[in-house]
Amino acid sequence: MNRVTALLIGLILIAGCAHHRDRLSVLKEGRWIDLTWSFDEQSVYWPTNIPVRHETVFEGMNDKGYYYSSFKFSAEEHGGTHFDAPIHFAKGANSVEKVPVEQLVGEGVVVDVTAKAAVDRDYQVSIEDFQSWEEKNGRIPDGAIVLLNTGFAQYYPDKLKYTGTMLAGAAGVENLHFPGLHPDAAKWLVDQRKIKAVGLDTPSIDFGQSKDFMSHRILYARNLTAYENLANLNSLPAKGSWIIALPMKIRGGSGAPLRIVALIVKP
Amino acid sequence: MNRVTALLIGLILIAGCAHHRDRLSVLKEGRWIDLTWSFDEQSVYWPTNIPVRHETVFEGMNDKGYYYSSFKFSAEEHGGTHFDAPIHFAKGANSVEKVPVEQLVGEGVVVDVTAKAAVDRDYQVSIEDFQSWEEKNGRIPDGAIVLLNTGFAQYYPDKLKYTGTMLAGAAGVENLHFPGLHPDAAKWLVDQRKIKAVGLDTPSIDFGQSKDFMSHRILYARNLTAYENLANLNSLPAKGSWIIALPMKIRGGSGAPLRIVALIVKP
Repeated sequence: MNRVTALLIGLILIAGCAHHRDRLSVLKEGRWIDLTWSFDEQSVYWPTNIPVRHETVFEGMNDKGYYYSSFKFSAEEHGGTHFDAPIHFAKGANSVEKVPVEQLVGEGVVVDVTAKAAVDRDYQVSIEDFQSWEEKNGRIPDGAIVLLNTGFAQYYPDKLKYTGTMLAGAAGVENLHFPGLHPDAAKWLVDQRKIKAVGLDTPSIDFGQSKDFMSHRILYARNLTAYENLANLNSLPAKGSWIIALPMKIRGGSGAPLRIVALIVKP
Repeated sequence: MNRVTALLIGLILIAGCAHHRDRLSVLKEGRWIDLTWSFDEQSVYWPTNIPVRHETVFEGMNDKGYYYSSFKFSAEEHGGTHFDAPIHFAKGANSVEKVPVEQLVGEGVVVDVTAKAAVDRDYQVSIEDFQSWEEKNGRIPDGAIVLLNTGFAQYYPDKLKYTGTMLAGAAGVENLHFPGLHPDAAKWLVDQRKIKAVGLDTPSIDFGQSKDFMSHRILYARNLTAYENLANLNSLPAKGSWIIALPMKIRGGSGAPLRIVALIVKP
């Protein structure tokens, strides 16, 4: 290597580093994906829940001569794209406003179980599904947000196809059929890995036929959180995305409407 | 420069670049700040609005022997830490769910007017305030989210100190006294700079004594958005933060509860 070559290599490396010097560039150049369904009368809620209401306070030209619109709304905490705080199933655990921002953001790990869920509406994501992901992508990183792509987002908001039933109340609950996370796999995640949250594209972390909500209880007893009724998981890579999941900050909330987006960074 | 020196410089540069190769490191190493007040009975709403309600659906041990809690809530769109969609004051403009994610994230520009607002509750942020910011920090970057730190967050949620009045209804509206953005400055921002949104730590982008809400109308006619009742703006640097402002995705909403955080990247 002569001096000119060395100088050239140096200059190329300096240029490369300068490109990275603007630390905001990762955010400016990334691609943003919305993983959230809109809240409206079609939003999917638990069969025992009351639906969302969005009512007009004022809409139109006002007496001062300019356009104005304003509405009010009401909802249960656990419908549509929403956040579960640990206190939903764990006494004394964090309510929504107490979950620190650091736990609402993290590296996305997307586990694709669409093939299995397509032939079994009651499919429960297993330890083997996570092990198979790790064989291809390496160990689930500490601080990951684990997202389960069951493919059921394709049915949203068709209640019958998405949840398995159109019935309301207790009869509806009995007839729920959609995939979820198996309690053994929930236990493996909390014991064997260090994750922040689990999300999926069905109405509940536990599958529709669950009677004891054991995966909820396992996750929340360890102060983990969950996201339910997610959209667009099939737009995410298996790894390398960054998830930002910001729930409405309801004091004392056991859950809340969630706005969740993913950042796909430019390689 | 001899060969050994050249080699050493090269190795140092390679090491520096490798450190930057993990593009998620900016997100992993950054510091997150929550700019959001919790929603509760104390949340500050417009004097004509009804307050937030958060009601228990179930809380305690259930008949299956495990703890469970769930609540429901209702609110007007424009109270507490919230988002204004352009349709709030601009007919046919974007409602909440139509604002693209790219417009909900951007570089933070924090303009400190605390000294002026401390001696004048009716202070309106001026073109000169922005010019003074630019003299110190350079031109407001394209795509910026402009945040006005009036210092009024220190009074939240004390209604009298924060808004100027405890009265409800029309009498309350007449007696509002808090700082805002002057319409001339709003016009300068939309005409002379390319920003995405304006946020501040008071109940409204227009100051309390505004009768025509002209700054709202100027911003929203150009499809810009606004954030009101922000927290913790004094924790942000004048520039170099990244703002992520995710409203509850209410279809047709003129506004929505907003969860807003800032990322302070490690230099």
